[in-house]
Amino acid sequence: MSKGLPKRSEDYSLWYNELVKRADLAENSEVKGCMIIKPYGYSIWEKMQAQLDRRFKETGHENAYFPIFIPKSYLSKEASHVEGFAKECAVVTHYRLKNSEDGREVIVDPDAKLEEELIVRPTSETVIWNTYRNWIQSHRDLPLLVNQWANVVRWEMRTRLFLRTTEFLWQEGHTAHATRQQAMDETLQMLDIYAEFAENFMALPVIKGLKTESERFAGAEDTYCIEAMMQDGKALQAGTSHFLGQNFSKAFDVKFANAEGGLEYVWGTSWGVSTRLMGALIMAHSDDRGLVLPPKLAPVQVVLVPIFKSQEELDAVSEKAKEIMNKLRAIGISVKFDDRDTFKPGWKFAEYELKGVPVRIAIGPRDLEKNTVEIFRRDTLSKENLNLNDLSIEEKVSSLLEEIQHSIYRKALDFRNEMTTEVNSWDEFKTVLEEKGGFISAHWDGTPETEEEIKAQTKATIRCIPLERRGEEGHCVLTGKTSKGRVIFAKAY
Amino acid sequence: MSKGLPKRSEDYSLWYNELVKRADLAENSEVKGCMIIKPYGYSIWEKMQAQLDRRFKETGHENAYFPIFIPKSYLSKEASHVEGFAKECAVVTHYRLKNSEDGREVIVDPDAKLEEELIVRPTSETVIWNTYRNWIQSHRDLPLLVNQWANVVRWEMRTRLFLRTTEFLWQEGHTAHATRQQAMDETLQMLDIYAEFAENFMALPVIKGLKTESERFAGAEDTYCIEAMMQDGKALQAGTSHFLGQNFSKAFDVKFANAEGGLEYVWGTSWGVSTRLMGALIMAHSDDRGLVLPPKLAPVQVVLVPIFKSQEELDAVSEKAKEIMNKLRAIGISVKFDDRDTFKPGWKFAEYELKGVPVRIAIGPRDLEKNTVEIFRRDTLSKENLNLNDLSIEEKVSSLLEEIQHSIYRKALDFRNEMTTEVNSWDEFKTVLEEKGGFISAHWDGTPETEEEIKAQTKATIRCIPLERRGEEGHCVLTGKTSKGRVIFAKAY
Repeated sequence: MSKGLPKRSEDYSLWYNELVKRADLAENSEVKGCMIIKPYGYSIWEKMQAQLDRRFKETGHENAYFPIFIPKSYLSKEASHVEGFAKECAVVTHYRLKNSEDGREVIVDPDAKLEEELIVRPTSETVIWNTYRNWIQSHRDLPLLVNQWANVVRWEMRTRLFLRTTEFLWQEGHTAHATRQQAMDETLQMLDIYAEFAENFMALPVIKGLKTESERFAGAEDTYCIEAMMQDGKALQAGTSHFLGQNFSKAFDVKFANAEGGLEYVWGTSWGVSTRLMGALIMAHSDDRGLVLPPKLAPVQVVLVPIFKSQEELDAVSEKAKEIMNKLRAIGISVKFDDRDTFKPGWKFAEYELKGVPVRIAIGPRDLEKNTVEIFRRDTLSKENLNLNDLSIEEKVSSLLEEIQHSIYRKALDFRNEMTTEVNSWDEFKTVLEEKGGFISAHWDGTPETEEEIKAQTKATIRCIPLERRGEEGHCVLTGKTSKGRVIFAKAY
Repeated sequence: MSKGLPKRSEDYSLWYNELVKRADLAENSEVKGCMIIKPYGYSIWEKMQAQLDRRFKETGHENAYFPIFIPKSYLSKEASHVEGFAKECAVVTHYRLKNSEDGREVIVDPDAKLEEELIVRPTSETVIWNTYRNWIQSHRDLPLLVNQWANVVRWEMRTRLFLRTTEFLWQEGHTAHATRQQAMDETLQMLDIYAEFAENFMALPVIKGLKTESERFAGAEDTYCIEAMMQDGKALQAGTSHFLGQNFSKAFDVKFANAEGGLEYVWGTSWGVSTRLMGALIMAHSDDRGLVLPPKLAPVQVVLVPIFKSQEELDAVSEKAKEIMNKLRAIGISVKFDDRDTFKPGWKFAEYELKGVPVRIAIGPRDLEKNTVEIFRRDTLSKENLNLNDLSIEEKVSSLLEEIQHSIYRKALDFRNEMTTEVNSWDEFKTVLEEKGGFISAHWDGTPETEEEIKAQTKATIRCIPLERRGEEGHCVLTGKTSKGRVIFAKAY
């Protein structure tokens, strides 16, 4: 708490990095690209996990756990999967260390070389479909609806806390179905669950859409995604749901006997969100004072700060504060009472603003006389005095938390709308991208070549083909060829 | 469900392996020593996690996440730690694959060799204490109470599902304190939490004790453990809590400024339980028909099986069954209603016995007339007819679940008591170990040499020096030298 954060307007990237560290969310470890998720950051992730896990279970999914190691040869079984995932990954080649001859260090024991190298999972389709071959025989074994919470590793050259790390935490759902339609329904159901979670819990408006071929998951027939906008106008892919078709069932020979006794290949999906959501949450709402957390994901929703000059005053104020704390806890609100006398109220105010606690209640000796409290809301930085004779603290705080949740969402939505521009010419495209940024809604001729050319010229990529777009024929913003509808372009994380 | 399980009396080891697979708990993967935890097994583990996690949080611990990779050099920093953990471990040496020249496979890219090899964590003391150096400056930063739920890897040559696997899931707590006393209090508090959980939830009686020097965690000053007895009379270490002294703070230079401004090394603890608990749960209670699960950890506590010959009968019975299901769910009991018409009741009975569902309720057309149900309890295999005019289903089932929980514990405790023998001579020691097995309570002269000699001659190890043992001087069962009290010997998993 030595000095303020860098300002977003001056250095957005530095602001983000500093915020993540100073708000005790995460930090870099000495292992390149691997982060340490600190307790405060992890407690937000746990709240995300609990919500997502409940939704998965409500829709019939069960959790399981598959090995972290994948035999190298598995990766080669699905042709496009190997292209996408066999490049940057951690390779285990040996299984033993030994003391060096001079006894001063440990070295890799050359005699303990694995016959086949093992890959630390970058994603688990291969090991899971290799297992499904034994789990699925009949149509009665389907659908198979499995999810796994796990760590995965993708060797990244340029990393940023939460957004792109070599190791990250995620969930990966892997389902198997008897028909194309059922698998497609599942793919879209999970996309809807992600979108509902992002909007209602993270207060993050998202666009649901289909990825273009070049942005598709390696091994999928179709990749669906939710795309969010960050405060710097860049896009962030917040979750993906893949329709795998029969690609993995064919690669791993997973067939089932249908009701008529014929053998068919199984249809698959996979879907995941990761600790990257933490990055999205931080970037979407926070400000130059620190984190702004939506109440539904805040580990501490209300902090009570006593104002006092003497032990007597602290005792008197504490009694009132504890009464309030108990009332709020009784209705399920998480409250912290910070009665430390080693820090001044002003220091505490700044600390909880940095940590994004949605509501702060300050109580001093004069409040006791008047039966009032001072209520501060983190998102708007506004203060008010509440007379507890007029309104109970429970009513006030619960409605305020709801209002904050809604207001943060609304603010993000307004910003996204304002920062989404329909453009109709190539000059306009470049100007808007350069001067305003954000999402550009434009016609595209549907070819990978044009997509690639636009990316090469501007660094903007097609974020998605929105599921909800109006039927509108037009002409590609670059080539002028015919287009069936607009897609979303943006620079992205 | 083709044929029965092997019998415990004929081949205990085969019985265990088959049970784990057939009850859908876990199976081996194609990666040597790595298991796949199947949904049913994982749902039991989740129930264990939830209980333990709640206890950790109630005692002030917070969860965090540290990297899976540990630089090789970290392991060497604590002298005895490297001896214990640098031997059998997975070593990452490269970070990229590439296509082979003939394009037919992927190979390790020799240009992508790491400067320093990374070890897949066998335990995280090193990486965590390396981090604590930055997190701890002042006595106000202490105690630091952190836990992590994670996967770890120890390269094992001989593996068994849940009991000893190359990769396993666990939690590892790592705490830092200002004084020796506080760290010791924490060590024992966590041991108590493990014991309470084992006894009240797993229905597993445990002996709390101190490990001898030779069985101590590599890097600890003292290792405390809970030891349980399996049905074959062998011991299983179910959890450990380590007092680390200042070993890791010295190795990683973690000091704090005390209240007087002087610099001191921090005192540490670490403690963990793993998916090994699943093995203990299975081995302690199950029988030749399958799993016996304590109700508090059973994913399904009650299964409802309809008895019917026609669709009309099924409809009538279903109505009653759903009414019962709703009543039981309303009081927090997890119920499954299996109305599949593709399996006969007898098949279902065997299936749920195999899966260890504590209570089975069968309802047929005649039950509707008489307002009765047939209630079967898995642990004793006993049946009774309940007249619902006499007792409500909620009262009956909730008291029955409590009774089963208690009864399973009692049975395990009686067995352990019966299988614990005080011996006073070396001949008696060998005879009891050979003919009866179980725990042997005997005097030991306190030297590692005697412990080693006993192990060499009999394969029995000292499981622990029980915390609660009566003051009793005696003579070592092997050497005749003086002893201050009895210790527990057993063959162990």
